[in-house]
Amino acid sequence: MFQKVSLRGLTTIIVILAVQNIFSQQRTIPFVSPEVHKDKTVTFRFRAPNAREVKLKSEMTAEPQTMTKDAGGVWSVTIGPVEPDIYPYCFVVDSVQVADPGNVLLFANERFKFSLVDIPGDQPLIHSMQNVPHGNISYRYYKSSTLGRTRTLVIYTPPGFDVNGKTKYPVLYLIHGGSDTEETWTKVGRANLIADNLIAQGKARPMIIVMPYGNVRPSPMQDFTKDVINDIIPFVEANYPVYTDSKNRAVAGFSVGGGQTLNIGLTNPDKFAYICSYAPYTATEEFRKNFTNWNPDASAMNRQIKLFTISVGTEDFLYESVKQNIAMFREKGLKPEENIVTGGHTWMNCKKYLAKTLQQIFKD
Amino acid sequence: MFQKVSLRGLTTIIVILAVQNIFSQQRTIPFVSPEVHKDKTVTFRFRAPNAREVKLKSEMTAEPQTMTKDAGGVWSVTIGPVEPDIYPYCFVVDSVQVADPGNVLLFANERFKFSLVDIPGDQPLIHSMQNVPHGNISYRYYKSSTLGRTRTLVIYTPPGFDVNGKTKYPVLYLIHGGSDTEETWTKVGRANLIADNLIAQGKARPMIIVMPYGNVRPSPMQDFTKDVINDIIPFVEANYPVYTDSKNRAVAGFSVGGGQTLNIGLTNPDKFAYICSYAPYTATEEFRKNFTNWNPDASAMNRQIKLFTISVGTEDFLYESVKQNIAMFREKGLKPEENIVTGGHTWMNCKKYLAKTLQQIFKD
Repeated sequence: MFQKVSLRGLTTIIVILAVQNIFSQQRTIPFVSPEVHKDKTVTFRFRAPNAREVKLKSEMTAEPQTMTKDAGGVWSVTIGPVEPDIYPYCFVVDSVQVADPGNVLLFANERFKFSLVDIPGDQPLIHSMQNVPHGNISYRYYKSSTLGRTRTLVIYTPPGFDVNGKTKYPVLYLIHGGSDTEETWTKVGRANLIADNLIAQGKARPMIIVMPYGNVRPSPMQDFTKDVINDIIPFVEANYPVYTDSKNRAVAGFSVGGGQTLNIGLTNPDKFAYICSYAPYTATEEFRKNFTNWNPDASAMNRQIKLFTISVGTEDFLYESVKQNIAMFREKGLKPEENIVTGGHTWMNCKKYLAKTLQQIFKD
Repeated sequence: MFQKVSLRGLTTIIVILAVQNIFSQQRTIPFVSPEVHKDKTVTFRFRAPNAREVKLKSEMTAEPQTMTKDAGGVWSVTIGPVEPDIYPYCFVVDSVQVADPGNVLLFANERFKFSLVDIPGDQPLIHSMQNVPHGNISYRYYKSSTLGRTRTLVIYTPPGFDVNGKTKYPVLYLIHGGSDTEETWTKVGRANLIADNLIAQGKARPMIIVMPYGNVRPSPMQDFTKDVINDIIPFVEANYPVYTDSKNRAVAGFSVGGGQTLNIGLTNPDKFAYICSYAPYTATEEFRKNFTNWNPDASAMNRQIKLFTISVGTEDFLYESVKQNIAMFREKGLKPEENIVTGGHTWMNCKKYLAKTLQQIFKD
């Protein structure tokens, strides 16, 4: 039998259709996972009749939660109430991490396969699907002369976008974290819905958001900076109606992408008037080369840069490192704005950082 | 430490960056999986030091393949040589099915989480990334008045597409299989690259391909037919420069979507001149209602329909059912063209069916 599990948007809907299970050739009793209850507790279920131990590992609890097995071989646990947000989780089945098989919401990542649970708020959250005009997400190929290969970009265009219209747009270049992919900002970070909602509220300017793939290996990381400057920006400016001055160009990114944001932005202040770094990971060769013994013309840069902001959570494992970097940039005469919040090195925080950024940029 | 595994297009590239593994808080020795060798054998690897048994389950071999564990707790097996194609696979770890953690190529599905291995041909295959102009994949939201909710469409537009240009395009509505999603035709079926390649070769007309989400539960299946006719087609025709006559409209689909194709197409022959059904699953209430005691005006329909084709593989578990349906439609006076090939109920076959369809439609 197929078990048809449809998890779409805010609502968990499950329905079962009795047709032959083509792939796995086995019959199973259907169940729902995750099941988000009205009181914001959540039940997770996983079938593993032969497992010795199954735990729920997630960013909702500090420690993995023990699950218990029923007579049908289905392990379950109910946790919460949980603060409304979108959280990564997986099952740890005898030490092996497994995504939730019947949940279509997946964390786009190169190294692990985790699921996402979306716990709606009493009022729609900033990343929730709301009844507002929606922009469009496109998957585009571009040829990178820097890297010598065809690569993928995910591009958000705002509601009402017309590629041949008279309206020109500012552009935010938005970079994912280490081991993430070009899909992570939309699939996990809901960048498109955050933008839709803030544009509808008049809090963000209609803009194009370009989400590149920041992993350029086996090339060295600094080739990504070259790829952005020499390939991605020209591709975007050749194919979209966009402003091309620095006041209409922003760069932002998380973790490894937050470090890339600093490298890309601060070495090109003539090109980016907005530099927004989220929990930057900076223990890289590129960062060391760029910012050790760095002697910027700070007063010139401070005139060029309209906003230089660094965000981090107080529980982020990079908190101390980020504070040190903020101090270092201040010593050099720059004026990074601190955005210190609670929370850790998570995509829950990323959504908050992005929502703040979208309301700050392109306002001059 | 992050392990950075990049699997992109035809090439498996792996490179390792030593940074902190933020999520799993554990250190592991990096390895590559899947590793496609030059002789088209493939090595699969999976870390599970505590597992009692790990097998490779895939559509490359009839039976799961036993994997063996090394001293580091990494299980591996090498299979093949394998015929070049894209195949689903997973690891079966003590009876639990697990996707390959470091492989970004995932089978888009609601019920299982499997990985994909892409084995390139000596010459580029029809679904391979080639050095040709590329179309664009967009994720669009539309409001379904039939279903009372906002839903997602994946839409392919061909190279050179201009939403406001003078060029109008024909439209193929292309439906996934049971438990698949609106992403399966691009993520697994590579519909966009197949179209890019055939258009570049002059074998297919530039067209728009609309890939809806065919699962409408908890609504009954026939509401999807209504959704296509009353919501999706009007949305496409309002937002894209397309021809609106039946000769410029095709419907195709696989498995459950192949059954939906017959329901949608044959009950609306004034709207679709091309009806292309791949290994249709027809044991549904909608099909029974539509085609039991059906008395079509066959000669009128045969004038309206330019191409009615049903594809199936001789090893498909639906082969006999499909043959019976072909006979039934012939009894009713219709002229279904048989496309009988080798192979089973697989996405390897889907790509072949689609490649044939794209060369047949919109040629009158």
